[in-house]
Amino acid sequence: MQQRTEIASLGEFGLIKHLTENIKLKHSSSVLGVGDDAAILSYAENTNQKVLVTTDLLLEGIHFDLIYVPLKHLGYKSAVVNFSDIYAMNGQPKQITVSLGVSKRFSVEDLEDFYAGLELACEQYGVDIVGGDTSASLTGLCISITCIGEGIEGQIVTRAGAKENDIICVSGDLGAAYMGLQLLEREKAVFDGKSDFTPDFSGREYLLERQLKPEARKDIIETLANEGIVPTSMMDISDGLSSELIHICRQSKVGCRIYEERLPLDYQTAVMAEEFNLNVTTVALNGGEDYELLFTVPLHLHDKVSKMKGVRVIGHITNESLGLALETRDSTEIELKAQGWNSLSEDN
Amino acid sequence: MQQRTEIASLGEFGLIKHLTENIKLKHSSSVLGVGDDAAILSYAENTNQKVLVTTDLLLEGIHFDLIYVPLKHLGYKSAVVNFSDIYAMNGQPKQITVSLGVSKRFSVEDLEDFYAGLELACEQYGVDIVGGDTSASLTGLCISITCIGEGIEGQIVTRAGAKENDIICVSGDLGAAYMGLQLLEREKAVFDGKSDFTPDFSGREYLLERQLKPEARKDIIETLANEGIVPTSMMDISDGLSSELIHICRQSKVGCRIYEERLPLDYQTAVMAEEFNLNVTTVALNGGEDYELLFTVPLHLHDKVSKMKGVRVIGHITNESLGLALETRDSTEIELKAQGWNSLSEDN
Repeated sequence: MQQRTEIASLGEFGLIKHLTENIKLKHSSSVLGVGDDAAILSYAENTNQKVLVTTDLLLEGIHFDLIYVPLKHLGYKSAVVNFSDIYAMNGQPKQITVSLGVSKRFSVEDLEDFYAGLELACEQYGVDIVGGDTSASLTGLCISITCIGEGIEGQIVTRAGAKENDIICVSGDLGAAYMGLQLLEREKAVFDGKSDFTPDFSGREYLLERQLKPEARKDIIETLANEGIVPTSMMDISDGLSSELIHICRQSKVGCRIYEERLPLDYQTAVMAEEFNLNVTTVALNGGEDYELLFTVPLHLHDKVSKMKGVRVIGHITNESLGLALETRDSTEIELKAQGWNSLSEDN
Repeated sequence: MQQRTEIASLGEFGLIKHLTENIKLKHSSSVLGVGDDAAILSYAENTNQKVLVTTDLLLEGIHFDLIYVPLKHLGYKSAVVNFSDIYAMNGQPKQITVSLGVSKRFSVEDLEDFYAGLELACEQYGVDIVGGDTSASLTGLCISITCIGEGIEGQIVTRAGAKENDIICVSGDLGAAYMGLQLLEREKAVFDGKSDFTPDFSGREYLLERQLKPEARKDIIETLANEGIVPTSMMDISDGLSSELIHICRQSKVGCRIYEERLPLDYQTAVMAEEFNLNVTTVALNGGEDYELLFTVPLHLHDKVSKMKGVRVIGHITNESLGLALETRDSTEIELKAQGWNSLSEDN
């Protein structure tokens, strides 16, 4: 059986020290890391350089279910979803700070697993952990991560720059993370306390990976940079394609038209949607947690982006007056609505 | 009766927009605030400038009790405790990001109160709110704030620079916030559901203010700068003087000797400690949440700091081999131990 060390045996400061003492800083911009009142970062190498900051709060029971999410995966995902926000600005994540609220049911080994996942993600994406705060929680696990990154003035991409006639692109495929979640929820319901239960995930590995160990699209940002392309607008898809397109169109004061037949889908997503009796287009539009990039580029770059590996052109930007439209396979037009994963709505 | 608007009526994005749409950015370093994947900050004005980052997680039932903490005060305090960490590096806080996890028992008006407190603190200390994230919580209120500030290379002060013979200084007075908490807890116990109960706080206003609406010592940082003094080490006192002195001595590899008779106490703290049958020195050493500054300066600055308003010299730094000593009024020596507010220890 795995060893269980009570957190109380280390105390708050002992715990932070234990979890962070072997962390090595990789970036010259990380001057001082964990262990003082604040981290010190050096971001003044050239005057075109800007600092990007993003933050995410992940709460047990709302954003994750520890019944099927291993803590190491949770650590990995918690870091990656923040990196994704920095890439979505066309920036590079450089540092994170990590605050944890933990109840007594967690052991030191549990938190070591979480940190192992965090550190793996940081290793993979070249990010330093520069601050840590650990506190008691009366209830579930509470994770707050802030990511600091750098961007170059003129190359930073917001949601507000899409122009009429720009083409709309997405990376990877959509809806798989959502189907992975449905699968995990189904197996959890079937399990329901049976000790000899083995969940059936064969042939569904991709869906599980997309849900449990998502990656941020650093590669797409690098490809765009290599091609000399700066998108006119960009976001990462965390709440679903529809919801994110609405953000871009509102903030850019434009409309859009996307095509159902152009939506990128993985085979497993389609099969699983069929099995669950779900419309796969709805899943692709509203699934959420894809962490793919949604971006727009000027029309003259159409051929260039069409040839980019892992990028699909799904439509184009229109005049604001035309609204947000999806053209279905049978050529009818549907208005795009946010049915994304809105954790504060009545339905949840 | 106060109006109650359900959060669900606005939805997650509507709520963030509602709470943040009137926020004005004050600093030229705040290039883009709430509303994109990340905030954009400009920190490259001169190459001596460093970015400071600190983060704090505040959880209901652990760090605050909404029975006696008004949400506006909580917003104010949540911001101020982060500013305090930046001042403790001898820096200036410039931006914060705010993540909230809220359950359905909170209304939009509740969160408006919280934001009013946040904004008041930001106004007072000249800080911009550049990022906001609001999520559902299954249980209590969860607040995560990250503060970004600036410091100048060579003037940033860590915990690791104290030298033998340096003198040890603290700002303000100690233990009042802790006594304020004891008072609130007592009145809460007396109250215990009585609808006609009026708590008795007369003559204790200072203690309550220290607990409910603490201030960060921006003024002390300014005075030090005006006098041309850069402390050799500095921290803010959030967990109690003893605990913080232990941090400074460990990280600076030195010992210290402080004098009981030099500990700064307010009259109300002393009276209240007497009433609660508590040793006032223990309260001053271990009370916590004072948010005063603890710092060390070279011996030759003794006369200068002694004359500074709101600063008290309480002892001096010694060789590491001498340990951490408190000399009592009757000249006996006691070893300093951290009995600070350790929220993860067994006793809590």
